[in-house]
Amino acid sequence: MSLGEFSLIQRYFTDHSRHTGPYPAKLGIGDDAAVMEIPPGMQLVQTIDTLITGRHFPFNTKPGDIAYKSLAVNVSDLIAMAADPAWFVLSLTLPDSDESFLQDFSDGLFAAAETFSIELVGGDTCKGDLSVTIQASGLVPRNHYITRGGARPGDRIFVSGSLGSAATALAALQGRLTLKPQQLKELLPALNRPKPQLAMIPLLRQYASSAIDISDGLVGDLGHILNNSGVGARLEKSTLPVCDYISAMDNYDLALYGGDDYQVVFTVAPSAIGNMVKQTQADALAVTEIGVITDQGYFLQDAGQTIDLSSKRGFDHFGH
Amino acid sequence: MSLGEFSLIQRYFTDHSRHTGPYPAKLGIGDDAAVMEIPPGMQLVQTIDTLITGRHFPFNTKPGDIAYKSLAVNVSDLIAMAADPAWFVLSLTLPDSDESFLQDFSDGLFAAAETFSIELVGGDTCKGDLSVTIQASGLVPRNHYITRGGARPGDRIFVSGSLGSAATALAALQGRLTLKPQQLKELLPALNRPKPQLAMIPLLRQYASSAIDISDGLVGDLGHILNNSGVGARLEKSTLPVCDYISAMDNYDLALYGGDDYQVVFTVAPSAIGNMVKQTQADALAVTEIGVITDQGYFLQDAGQTIDLSSKRGFDHFGH
Repeated sequence: MSLGEFSLIQRYFTDHSRHTGPYPAKLGIGDDAAVMEIPPGMQLVQTIDTLITGRHFPFNTKPGDIAYKSLAVNVSDLIAMAADPAWFVLSLTLPDSDESFLQDFSDGLFAAAETFSIELVGGDTCKGDLSVTIQASGLVPRNHYITRGGARPGDRIFVSGSLGSAATALAALQGRLTLKPQQLKELLPALNRPKPQLAMIPLLRQYASSAIDISDGLVGDLGHILNNSGVGARLEKSTLPVCDYISAMDNYDLALYGGDDYQVVFTVAPSAIGNMVKQTQADALAVTEIGVITDQGYFLQDAGQTIDLSSKRGFDHFGH
Repeated sequence: MSLGEFSLIQRYFTDHSRHTGPYPAKLGIGDDAAVMEIPPGMQLVQTIDTLITGRHFPFNTKPGDIAYKSLAVNVSDLIAMAADPAWFVLSLTLPDSDESFLQDFSDGLFAAAETFSIELVGGDTCKGDLSVTIQASGLVPRNHYITRGGARPGDRIFVSGSLGSAATALAALQGRLTLKPQQLKELLPALNRPKPQLAMIPLLRQYASSAIDISDGLVGDLGHILNNSGVGARLEKSTLPVCDYISAMDNYDLALYGGDDYQVVFTVAPSAIGNMVKQTQADALAVTEIGVITDQGYFLQDAGQTIDLSSKRGFDHFGH
């Protein structure tokens, strides 16, 4: 059944009772643009990401998972800047206005919006191959945002959560490795409903010298910190927090070069580490030290071996 | 030649010398997100629009024109809210990283950015069918934005610029009507490089009771004002500002239902009209009175005839 654009937006995306963010818009969906108030002393942080069927998620991914993930990847960027999620706008391109698709999609979208305390304030719909673009806005106390450019030699490298679960699940779905059904069931949520850690935001603001979210693989994304900061790094393989499959099979490439983790890798000056660790314990945050910032070079220490990472990259959207 | 995503962004979109907006970002392209300062007393206004090849522009449209128009349609939404353009983010999906395409595209994009005084602060690139999504942010003095919901019976209806030129050019390109080469040459810029009127912003802030930009045709877009304001309207055909072809051929449907005008239709209370007209004369703004807001109903007066517009709509992205 075909719905006009206007009714489509009205029906699936304009439900004011679902607005759960801490910064309610002055004017939300339904006009030429949305209007928002920036609280005094806060700066605006903006990011945009597009997810395309068959490239960023397998063709048979459920609409609700597509929606959830599209919002999660944007929230992940805000967290890496140490910004609180506030608002997002959606541009949804669909082959047709399939109502069961839209119902499942909007359910997933608003589930994510609630999880991440972020409000949908506007959007656009088009006809075409399935593609989801979300632009998310966050707020950070003036000049307390964290960039990729502040790492200094001697800083320790930390990562939130664990790495490689989404890449392991994707490899199994694509037949590149075999998992037991129970293993796949446990790893699939990491791929379909990633959980960027809002709880990391205050920790990053207080202690991080640099940060980036891991969307394209640890090695590639940490590489951006090294480039922007003009430094090097040495990672210690034995310390990498990975899922059981990766450690059991010694298949660390899934954690080093796989994508879709949506955890934060960040650096902390030696003088701040003691207090940061206490804070992670007090807040029950899963944070692991995985290496150290150096003057130059990019290496992985693996028992006796030293692997040069400088020529290796994570997923590149135009390289594959 | 294939470029990685990172080099692609670096090469074609990170050129700080081109940043010409009045509100320079604290942190622009090259991190997880951009950071912006909102001046005291201002509210943030956000819009998003996606343009898809073959739907929003003909397949053989020049990349520079695609880019220019993609930014212009977003700026048009900001103007209709009476917001000054400030920043935009771009998500560009391309079949391949064709460098001549990218050069022409970025030239058109930055030409538009300069024309509209708006700064590119971030983006994403993907591989897929050509599609351009732009999210634009504007600023408006607190609570001085104009919505679709403020029209009152007795208010007069005005429109900026002229209507139907883009629709006439598109119809000619698609073989639905025939123009002389000189006529097509004169009308094409309206289709390919639309010029939303920044100069309308102060006028709207001071005098408009409601406003909307005309992207999908006058009748459909004014219809949104009527719906949101709970009022009716009577338009006077003889007053519509149209291109010579439309008046000569008496083909007013191109002005009434054609899209892509990116002018503003707005309403003004009778008591404010005198001062508004003086202001348009002082500022040399092209603004035309085309009708009146009524209690209910939606009609076009055409000499002796009264045409009911209430069942007619402009372009609907899922209806065609």
